[in-house]
Amino acid sequence: MSLENIRIVLTQPLYGGNIGSVCRAMKNMGLSRLVIVEDEPRWDAREARTMAYRAVDVLDAATVVPTLAEAVAECGLVAGTTARVGLYRDHSRTAREWAPHLLRSAEHTPVALVFGREDKGLTNEELALCTQIIQIPSSAAYTSLNLAQAVMVCCYELFVAAGVFAGSEEKYPEASSEQRERMFAIWEQTLLDIGFMEAEKAQHMMLGLRRILSRGQLTDADVRILMGIARQAQWCAGELAKHRPRPEALDNQDPSG
Amino acid sequence: MSLENIRIVLTQPLYGGNIGSVCRAMKNMGLSRLVIVEDEPRWDAREARTMAYRAVDVLDAATVVPTLAEAVAECGLVAGTTARVGLYRDHSRTAREWAPHLLRSAEHTPVALVFGREDKGLTNEELALCTQIIQIPSSAAYTSLNLAQAVMVCCYELFVAAGVFAGSEEKYPEASSEQRERMFAIWEQTLLDIGFMEAEKAQHMMLGLRRILSRGQLTDADVRILMGIARQAQWCAGELAKHRPRPEALDNQDPSG
Repeated sequence: MSLENIRIVLTQPLYGGNIGSVCRAMKNMGLSRLVIVEDEPRWDAREARTMAYRAVDVLDAATVVPTLAEAVAECGLVAGTTARVGLYRDHSRTAREWAPHLLRSAEHTPVALVFGREDKGLTNEELALCTQIIQIPSSAAYTSLNLAQAVMVCCYELFVAAGVFAGSEEKYPEASSEQRERMFAIWEQTLLDIGFMEAEKAQHMMLGLRRILSRGQLTDADVRILMGIARQAQWCAGELAKHRPRPEALDNQDPSG
Repeated sequence: MSLENIRIVLTQPLYGGNIGSVCRAMKNMGLSRLVIVEDEPRWDAREARTMAYRAVDVLDAATVVPTLAEAVAECGLVAGTTARVGLYRDHSRTAREWAPHLLRSAEHTPVALVFGREDKGLTNEELALCTQIIQIPSSAAYTSLNLAQAVMVCCYELFVAAGVFAGSEEKYPEASSEQRERMFAIWEQTLLDIGFMEAEKAQHMMLGLRRILSRGQLTDADVRILMGIARQAQWCAGELAKHRPRPEALDNQDPSG
């Protein structure tokens, strides 16, 4: 799978909390290969483990190399991220635009996503190793994202583009028109039976009810619940008619009360 | 603007670092209204300020209310986020699917995005106040996102959907076909002049060069740089011909050397 062939490269990260959060973001989004570029670690390993939480496996499996050149040596596409826009940084594309391209390439060759230092980003020498520049959309009021947040946005876009996530909505398809019409027929009878509306106003009132119940999504299960409510109310009205044989009294109820 | 009318609601957050990171993510993505639901703060204010970094203004402007009902009282749409999928949680849509809908609604009425506790999420009572459920795509291997990361993904989707971000690519449009053709004509002459190819192989070689230089994007500025290189090489070849009047020697150079 393409996602497994995409490595996240952190260049001289400073804070253990960020590194841990990066691990968690990666695992949340189906990535697992972390490479850290540094001569000696400057970050707090305990903080990293705390923030990684159930993604300590990503942290434990991380490899450490002294230079960015080594971190990306066998990679085809090398995508650098930068907040600054300057010389040679203008021809960037957003994370969303690059994602499908990176995934396609990762089918055959390892791909690297390179992130710079928390304080200074990537140097021009490091950017020169990158074949593409990824830009993360951000407000002009504050363009600099936290390192782990930047990693999350990129990993999220890759994960969504990979199409492996099946939203739960597919499990509950929209109710069919036939089901809805059966439900509205039962409701109409119910609203007459319980004395909520008179027969001559039924059509108008039912249009209002249709509008209310059709504005969102109505699934199979929803329709069954709504039919159940209506049938139960019908039953109540029927029982009431048996025990209090003066149905005209119901007509005097104020429906808005 | 719609984004200003969308509030982020954190329900009984536990960690100051997360709250600070939420503030930063919000400001990065053009949001500013933070509401915290709690009776008494349990989080470390210093950690919050550190992680908020240049978004302390969002933290300072945050309002605190004791219940979720109060936090969302004047809101139209109230979107809850949940990682768990269970009863009443199945009819969720992803952040990307909801974003345009939330923005449209926020043009007229305040909209709330509600996030649960780090450890326990939202209760069923709290979810009952929500008019929609937002699902954040995540890997089955680890579905639970860090609170601030979940906020970032949602805010990011809203910001992108708002369409206020102008990617820098628009500043440098693709070079025109006419510009490209002028450039290739100069390169063809140059490659002949410096003895890289012979005239009978020129057409074949130029197809290769076209393929290399057309695979990515070529902007106006790129074309000017490439023309400058070619012209300078032409100049060198011309100077060489003047000073070493035996041009046939050049033909013996190995182009791959």
